Amino acid sequence: MSNTTHESQTFSAESYFETQPQPPSLVADTEGVHEFIQRQQQANRSVVLVTSGGTTVPLELNVVRFLDNFSAGTRGATSAEYFLKAGYAVIFLHRQFSLQPFSRHYSHSTNPFLNFLEIDAALPSSSTIDSAFPYSNDPPPTTPTPQITVTTAERAKLFSVLRAYKAVHALGTLHMVSFVTVNEYLWLLRAVSREMSVLGRKAMYYLAAAVSDFFLPQQRLSEHKIQSGKGNLSIEMDQVPKILKPLVSEWNPEGFIVSFKLETDEMILIPKAQQALERYGHQVVIGNDLHHRKHRVVLISPVAADATKKLDGALVSQPKYAEFWIEIDSHQPSNHPKEIEEDIIEELLKRHNVWIEGS
Amino acid sequence: MSNTTHESQTFSAESYFETQPQPPSLVADTEGVHEFIQRQQQANRSVVLVTSGGTTVPLELNVVRFLDNFSAGTRGATSAEYFLKAGYAVIFLHRQFSLQPFSRHYSHSTNPFLNFLEIDAALPSSSTIDSAFPYSNDPPPTTPTPQITVTTAERAKLFSVLRAYKAVHALGTLHMVSFVTVNEYLWLLRAVSREMSVLGRKAMYYLAAAVSDFFLPQQRLSEHKIQSGKGNLSIEMDQVPKILKPLVSEWNPEGFIVSFKLETDEMILIPKAQQALERYGHQVVIGNDLHHRKHRVVLISPVAADATKKLDGALVSQPKYAEFWIEIDSHQPSNHPKEIEEDIIEELLKRHNVWIEGS
Repeated sequence: MSNTTHESQTFSAESYFETQPQPPSLVADTEGVHEFIQRQQQANRSVVLVTSGGTTVPLELNVVRFLDNFSAGTRGATSAEYFLKAGYAVIFLHRQFSLQPFSRHYSHSTNPFLNFLEIDAALPSSSTIDSAFPYSNDPPPTTPTPQITVTTAERAKLFSVLRAYKAVHALGTLHMVSFVTVNEYLWLLRAVSREMSVLGRKAMYYLAAAVSDFFLPQQRLSEHKIQSGKGNLSIEMDQVPKILKPLVSEWNPEGFIVSFKLETDEMILIPKAQQALERYGHQVVIGNDLHHRKHRVVLISPVAADATKKLDGALVSQPKYAEFWIEIDSHQPSNHPKEIEEDIIEELLKRHNVWIEGS
Repeated sequence: MSNTTHESQTFSAESYFETQPQPPSLVADTEGVHEFIQRQQQANRSVVLVTSGGTTVPLELNVVRFLDNFSAGTRGATSAEYFLKAGYAVIFLHRQFSLQPFSRHYSHSTNPFLNFLEIDAALPSSSTIDSAFPYSNDPPPTTPTPQITVTTAERAKLFSVLRAYKAVHALGTLHMVSFVTVNEYLWLLRAVSREMSVLGRKAMYYLAAAVSDFFLPQQRLSEHKIQSGKGNLSIEMDQVPKILKPLVSEWNPEGFIVSFKLETDEMILIPKAQQALERYGHQVVIGNDLHHRKHRVVLISPVAADATKKLDGALVSQPKYAEFWIEIDSHQPSNHPKEIEEDIIEELLKRHNVWIEGS
């Protein structure tokens, strides 16, 4: 595998949206976001856009194969809960089927909810196992159905998750929007950002999604499944335009924007983060290393340009960027683990308040 | 994007396993399968290996990006339930986080289980919403916890799913093994197939997983995240060896083997399926078109070579391959939908019985 420059064009944000297809659901999704933001404005709430999960890059128009970015959506789903807890309204722009707030506590694989539900009914013996199956043309089970209860071991945890879940739904402070492809993500990010601009400084962006740096322009996609048996596969991808630039400078200049930088080589984390702030001029980059991201992150932010201080009478110019490390014990009790997102959100809320007052 | 032949080697199954790394969990996974098969032999059950979900092809050793194959795992998870209903023991070799038997009925996105759980407790007002959140250092809710019940609307369905789920777990006829990468899949398929060979003709293979045709040899992986901003990305992939060949001819010659062929162009479905039977000499190829796969499939199988018949006194040789179409109404009632997998499994069980008697 190599990085080469081939003949195809490089895309600016403008040329991207001019040449790549608008998703069919964009108009309806945008209307939903518009109404949600109106309701939150009337309630005088701050609104945060949380993006979460990985984007796909289809290799075929009838998609069988695609490039993906590693992300279960844990950071975004967990963070969304702490924003909600703090009274923020959350637009959760997430990869379809990635982890979601609240239900994330009950992954089908690691903690399947069927395991802690109990019924008061004799289990069928092996000879009659098919009678246990409800599917197809079997009649539905005779009513009254026995009550289903939650095992005492799980009830306290489920109760508190369920309580928070229902509280949020009663308040209407969580709005779900989903994407699959990087193209859907880019169109949605622009549309949602423009809607959020009416919130001015009360709009926050928490861009935790793992967005592909590369994509295949619609015009170069093969219509049908690529056939194997014709030798090896060669894929040439173009760069995805740097979307933070128009977000900061055009779509919502007043927004408080937090982006993420994930690296597998911790050495280049800080330089890459500073480079991003230099280039886009937003407020915070959260740097995290793939292997330590659950218990250590660093917040990089610009220091006010004019900020200087006297030291022993000499004028000493401060560094241009400040590092703020957040770390928790990597060994957490399984029954009540501390989540690093709690501390991340707490720090960001402080800074967002300063940002709002600074207007 | 194009299919080109570049300089790199092409892999046979042998050279693949000689050069690509064995997954660390393979030994433990194989032991688990070994014990499961022993138990099923004592119970004189037929055993089916159901593979399900898509395989990934990592582009980096520290995986940030990967190639994937489109598959939620619906076919495999649904089919596994019907095999279990018929009294088969099922080894469910699935992509981590893809759909699973039973829990598939409660996708977090389309049918989140939190929606049909009820608690007898007043919801916190917006002023006290943070008190509804259980996270971090808040004390766990005071006992006794209110009971949690299932809404009457959902109870009958959940009851029957839960009943089947518990019956299967009581019987111990479902064994879960998961993979993520195509490399893990290939190593597991070989190990499980060898273990299943002791079952002779009572072993069935239902290979519904969406396996990548291409991969990147370990030796060509870049260690760290590929950096963008260095022009466009070019990926050259090698072909995955045709694993059905050794499966049929070496690992378990007596097994009843059903493979799948997914195409987006229905025109080439039958020829591709016949080509696969021609090449590997197994029992059934299930052909399905991406857009109609939930309500129309075709079973292609070889016709006994010697089978000929008299027609008006003339000897007429039959076609080499038989097509058996299965189709259901594409509009199903949402409360009690017919699933095409029920008819697929019913037909396959008939054929497997003939296969067993044919020994």
